[in-house]
Amino acid sequence: MVSSCSGCSTASTCSGSCPSVPELTEAQKLSNVKNVIAVMSGKGGVGKSSVTGMLAVSLMRQGYKVGVLDADVTGPSIPKIFGITAKADANENGIIPASTEKGIKLISLNLMIANEDDPVVWRGPIISQLVKQFWTDVIWGELDYLLIDLPPGTGDVPISVFQSIPVNGVITVSSPQQLANMVVRKAIKMANMYDANFYGLIENMAYVECPDCQKRIEIFGKPNGEKEAEFNEIPFLGELPIDPKLAELSDAGKIEEYNSEKFNQIIQKLINQSLGKGTKE
Amino acid sequence: MVSSCSGCSTASTCSGSCPSVPELTEAQKLSNVKNVIAVMSGKGGVGKSSVTGMLAVSLMRQGYKVGVLDADVTGPSIPKIFGITAKADANENGIIPASTEKGIKLISLNLMIANEDDPVVWRGPIISQLVKQFWTDVIWGELDYLLIDLPPGTGDVPISVFQSIPVNGVITVSSPQQLANMVVRKAIKMANMYDANFYGLIENMAYVECPDCQKRIEIFGKPNGEKEAEFNEIPFLGELPIDPKLAELSDAGKIEEYNSEKFNQIIQKLINQSLGKGTKE
Repeated sequence: MVSSCSGCSTASTCSGSCPSVPELTEAQKLSNVKNVIAVMSGKGGVGKSSVTGMLAVSLMRQGYKVGVLDADVTGPSIPKIFGITAKADANENGIIPASTEKGIKLISLNLMIANEDDPVVWRGPIISQLVKQFWTDVIWGELDYLLIDLPPGTGDVPISVFQSIPVNGVITVSSPQQLANMVVRKAIKMANMYDANFYGLIENMAYVECPDCQKRIEIFGKPNGEKEAEFNEIPFLGELPIDPKLAELSDAGKIEEYNSEKFNQIIQKLINQSLGKGTKE
Repeated sequence: MVSSCSGCSTASTCSGSCPSVPELTEAQKLSNVKNVIAVMSGKGGVGKSSVTGMLAVSLMRQGYKVGVLDADVTGPSIPKIFGITAKADANENGIIPASTEKGIKLISLNLMIANEDDPVVWRGPIISQLVKQFWTDVIWGELDYLLIDLPPGTGDVPISVFQSIPVNGVITVSSPQQLANMVVRKAIKMANMYDANFYGLIENMAYVECPDCQKRIEIFGKPNGEKEAEFNEIPFLGELPIDPKLAELSDAGKIEEYNSEKFNQIIQKLINQSLGKGTKE
């Protein structure tokens, strides 16, 4: 009994029969992921996948080993913004993630289907099972950071991620609309039900700068990310404009070429506050 | 046998045992919905709920009786943009939808929970069941149009809507990003699996106009809605800019006060092409 409970965090309170702790898969034995970050928003279209991509690129530039798990199974954006069209491979130990030009590891449903615009018309429990397998059956190898791009909503996938993947922290992406705030609050409350640790809130799409007259146009209303973060009792990481350059590079599959001073500041704040504590080699 | 099959559209081909045709509920007996339109995009955040809201308002202004079924259970926006905070009521016959200032009938999960920002942390099959009940158990009464605001993705809710609600036509909302196009194509392919009839594609967020110098800023890349509609073999209804006025009125719950010349043109095209054929009284 002692040997099977050794190292289990709930050993002191459980009955010792541990029915819920599955054996490690071969893929998991070959992987060592130090920090899992879920990027969520609740609301669709606020730039969650872009933020996930930029975060992966920034961490990679600082020398970390980074992977991205695209949990938005019915609307996967990650392979396209990184320009990955090759299909995922597998061997007897598990699924081999794709690798970007700069060495970021990726897994997504879109690496497994014939055409990128084919839909998966699946019920929630099937989708959840796939996302769980992206954790248990993918040979991630050594990673400092695995970023999980969650779908909108508070349904099957976020539930399964919080229940079955050891998420170290959550980054929340919002936009200035009160409508977005309402839906983002739902997601934050949901994550709180699973005792999530929040790394902070990023307010995306805060404004657009006119390329001719440099006017700051607040297309979705007055930015209020700092107030929203305070209301939700999570750190505020900063605001980002809508940058046509990012949309252009994302559509071209070249997000790894994007560089934003504003985003670099956010990343630095994030790393100072929450990340990188002894995980860089 | 004859009496129970009388009036059934598949009576000539079925075995006569009709196990799949449920009896009408009391709410359905009290309702007469002439035209059901599903508004879908696949991609989140392209303004699907705004388009649904504007469509409802335009049809109402033309004298039609309109209802909106908010099927985006985990990210419901419809009550907020119409300024509805009252809870849904019920009587012995079913659920009574809320009614906006101008008389549009609404049903949404957010009319049934204590706080608008409380999440529903539900698995897909439960969510689907609720959406089905929004059709079977709501006393819609006499409606010319019932608009269904679908959630992003191609999962449980769109599957259940196409399987269990008699949708007359689908309106697709996209944005200029190729990334959005890819995900929207998934949704269109999905709807095609259910032999959906497409009323057309609206390209939203095509540009922003600088309020100072009037420059047309294409923040998500060059609009390509007409080409996308052609690629998907569905009618093109027109493009819409991002209008800060719409965001402002939506946040204030006053979408019924919004008026857009561009949107009126789209509605006219839609009505000429597909709608309003003999349904107006």
